[in-house]
Amino acid sequence: MDGPLSGIRVVDLTQIYNGPYATFLMAMAGAEIIKVEPPGGEHTRRRQRDGGGAHIPHAMLNSGKVFVELDLKTEAGKAELTALIETSDVLVENFRPGVLTRLGFSRERLAELNPKLVYAASSGFGTTGPYRDYPAMDLAVQALSGVMSITGFPDNPPVKAGPAICDFNAGVHLYGAIVTALLERERTGRARAVEVSMFEAIYPALASNLGLMSGTNKDRPPRTGNQHGGLSISPYNVYACRDGWCAILANNEHQWRALARFFGQDWAIDEPRYASMYDRVARIDEVDALVAGWAAGFTKDELFRGLVAVGVPAAPVRELSEVMTDPHLHARGALVDIDHPIYGPVTLPTSPMVYEGMDRTIRWPSRKLGEDQAVLDQVRAAAAEAE
Amino acid sequence: MDGPLSGIRVVDLTQIYNGPYATFLMAMAGAEIIKVEPPGGEHTRRRQRDGGGAHIPHAMLNSGKVFVELDLKTEAGKAELTALIETSDVLVENFRPGVLTRLGFSRERLAELNPKLVYAASSGFGTTGPYRDYPAMDLAVQALSGVMSITGFPDNPPVKAGPAICDFNAGVHLYGAIVTALLERERTGRARAVEVSMFEAIYPALASNLGLMSGTNKDRPPRTGNQHGGLSISPYNVYACRDGWCAILANNEHQWRALARFFGQDWAIDEPRYASMYDRVARIDEVDALVAGWAAGFTKDELFRGLVAVGVPAAPVRELSEVMTDPHLHARGALVDIDHPIYGPVTLPTSPMVYEGMDRTIRWPSRKLGEDQAVLDQVRAAAAEAE
Repeated sequence: MDGPLSGIRVVDLTQIYNGPYATFLMAMAGAEIIKVEPPGGEHTRRRQRDGGGAHIPHAMLNSGKVFVELDLKTEAGKAELTALIETSDVLVENFRPGVLTRLGFSRERLAELNPKLVYAASSGFGTTGPYRDYPAMDLAVQALSGVMSITGFPDNPPVKAGPAICDFNAGVHLYGAIVTALLERERTGRARAVEVSMFEAIYPALASNLGLMSGTNKDRPPRTGNQHGGLSISPYNVYACRDGWCAILANNEHQWRALARFFGQDWAIDEPRYASMYDRVARIDEVDALVAGWAAGFTKDELFRGLVAVGVPAAPVRELSEVMTDPHLHARGALVDIDHPIYGPVTLPTSPMVYEGMDRTIRWPSRKLGEDQAVLDQVRAAAAEAE
Repeated sequence: MDGPLSGIRVVDLTQIYNGPYATFLMAMAGAEIIKVEPPGGEHTRRRQRDGGGAHIPHAMLNSGKVFVELDLKTEAGKAELTALIETSDVLVENFRPGVLTRLGFSRERLAELNPKLVYAASSGFGTTGPYRDYPAMDLAVQALSGVMSITGFPDNPPVKAGPAICDFNAGVHLYGAIVTALLERERTGRARAVEVSMFEAIYPALASNLGLMSGTNKDRPPRTGNQHGGLSISPYNVYACRDGWCAILANNEHQWRALARFFGQDWAIDEPRYASMYDRVARIDEVDALVAGWAAGFTKDELFRGLVAVGVPAAPVRELSEVMTDPHLHARGALVDIDHPIYGPVTLPTSPMVYEGMDRTIRWPSRKLGEDQAVLDQVRAAAAEAE
């Protein structure tokens, strides 16, 4: 395959979402991903059972990879991993810090085996610092990072963001760090180790909310429901309409005037009380009540099509079944429907990173545990030849 | 600075969060980011007013950049941009599709000016497809992508994730795509254009929830509150305790037994009704009620410290003020306190991508609009010399 990462080989020791998303992105860009699973398979493979839908994450994240099974607690398994390390460009793992060292593959040992190897690690909290050894998963990081305290309605308890955002956000940061290290290796010969912590990677996304907390609005509740996280844009909310909910916002005066005109509220276009963003933010609940009244008589599709046509950002609140069949995503090749050899008909994503001149494809669907075990024979031969 | 992207020059036409986060990550890795702002400055700079806290996002995302002001609607501005393009490695923008072409810088024109330029674009929906021209911001993408429909409590309306996850998630995907194209350029000479759409980039993070929707649980409400998004892990929730809330989960039988032992509930350790993950998921509300009862008498800190010490993922629900002062983040250099020359004392993030052998620093704080205007003289001279 002619992708930007063609010719890059990756030893992939990752599991669940964070690490596997990083290597999924690499696979989609053309890298050779040798996914090493423990006896019985990695967590998302084992989580499955008939009819539960739990196969979907595994199918989504493991397209285009090569699958081998190794017991890294045995000498034979360690020897296979050694040969993989000697012949690869990248080793990536998201064990808890210290696990790989205990298996006999410390940072120093990796550098001895292959000084050109980019070693990449991701974990909840990173390889240093007081929380280093704490176990973590998406839920715990959403709690500790403050994501939950700012999600939900002011009068309700804190609630997590629905998607596993801390996992996936760390995974794409991990991808970025790996490719950056590969670029530096190509330019200077230096192969740096890189690491990403889930806790740190989500912090920048709190920017609006940190602004709110730091400003004169600090006596407002930390959760703003569907209002802007910094309370610095108005209107900006989700409004009930005839058949559901529609998100509507106006990011500048031009959009505010277009919005008022769309709703036939010409009086509001030049109304001094709402003229500037500062004016509207100062009357944020009043503006929300106005827009809520205007929107209530429309369907969500009328609002969506009508408002975007006049340049106002708007979108219906969609169910996942609508998203999975979205015509835009399918027209662009972001989603493809396939008949998966293990799981049957599924809808799978290609890479969100779109490269000019390259078709969007999943390359091939995920495979059974150990299905590509024969690749280890080639790896051993190549490693022996190099010595 | 000796960073992995040292020597890479970037023309940065981005605004708000998505594009600026991509170029922030590049700046932190050592690239030279020439941020071109329109007359009056970009949106996050203009959003500020005294005391509102809205300066925080601008300060967070613009460390280590170089600031110039150009009116790209004038011939003089276009000439300056032309010289920048001729002497740079990357041009990145997150205008709506078509804006840069209307300014006179189509894809073809960019390739004529500099065939080695990596052109990177990000937008709500991408440069093709039926939604191409729709305006979008984080809120609209959270609605359209289904994030809202799966966030919140089953009995409450849909609610957005508190952080601007669609913006930032697209930004780090954009970073990854740019560096990937730079790596390919280094290896093969080919400079591909890349693009990332906010709508597409968030889709993979829905994996658990798409699994729930596709499985036999499809009659469950789409929002699971603080239960697992795929309802495939139990216990997994946020439990009320004496002084707040604590997230607790058990990802396998080992963690379940450690949890039961921590709470002194030895009877539960080998109780057949809760023996396997499948058993617990089948009784998910019953298990939640048990753990809720056990947790209620503790403080959140007792639960956090006590449970992680026995290997069970747990974390208190934190306010942002606690996160900004977190000892772990400060010990690792992920956050630094500085006296900002414009904004005064602020806490700023360094890059979540940690590179071996490299200090974590913000390089320098963000500057005033046009503060580095003199850099354009050097750029013009270099461009003239190259001709």
